[in-house]
Amino acid sequence: MDTIEIIGLVAATLTTSSFIPQVYKAWRHKSTRDVSLTMYLAFFIGTMLWLYYGYVHESLAIILANGITGILVIVMLVLKIKHK
Amino acid sequence: MDTIEIIGLVAATLTTSSFIPQVYKAWRHKSTRDVSLTMYLAFFIGTMLWLYYGYVHESLAIILANGITGILVIVMLVLKIKHK
Repeated sequence: MDTIEIIGLVAATLTTSSFIPQVYKAWRHKSTRDVSLTMYLAFFIGTMLWLYYGYVHESLAIILANGITGILVIVMLVLKIKHK
Repeated sequence: MDTIEIIGLVAATLTTSSFIPQVYKAWRHKSTRDVSLTMYLAFFIGTMLWLYYGYVHESLAIILANGITGILVIVMLVLKIKHK
């Protein structure tokens, strides 16, 4: 695999997994007051469109990254609605 | 332009601009207690790697999306450090 493709995979892993500490923080502290609902709604719609883009382009990397991000963003939306 | 490429552009616009309401909220309320510093640090490093990926692949869309996202994420990091 080319070095640049490995860099792309590291980039995708970082931007995807970055939501894990945010989900953990919101779940642990039961507070999401400072978190923007609009941000997560827009991010979720964007992620779903990326998922479709990856499906059409048959890109496993795009599908995986956005599939996992989508799940984490849904959890954040649930926590945001639950712990206003 | 293909419909799927337009969908990709809309996806990129949404995931990039989604940070604007979060930055506005943090700036207006001067509070970022519920926002995860680890998330924004990981997201920033990921965005910088995507920027390099886009530069090597000569993809203006990847460069633009991650350049703008990078600036918004830096602003969030500054607000997070300023308003603990």
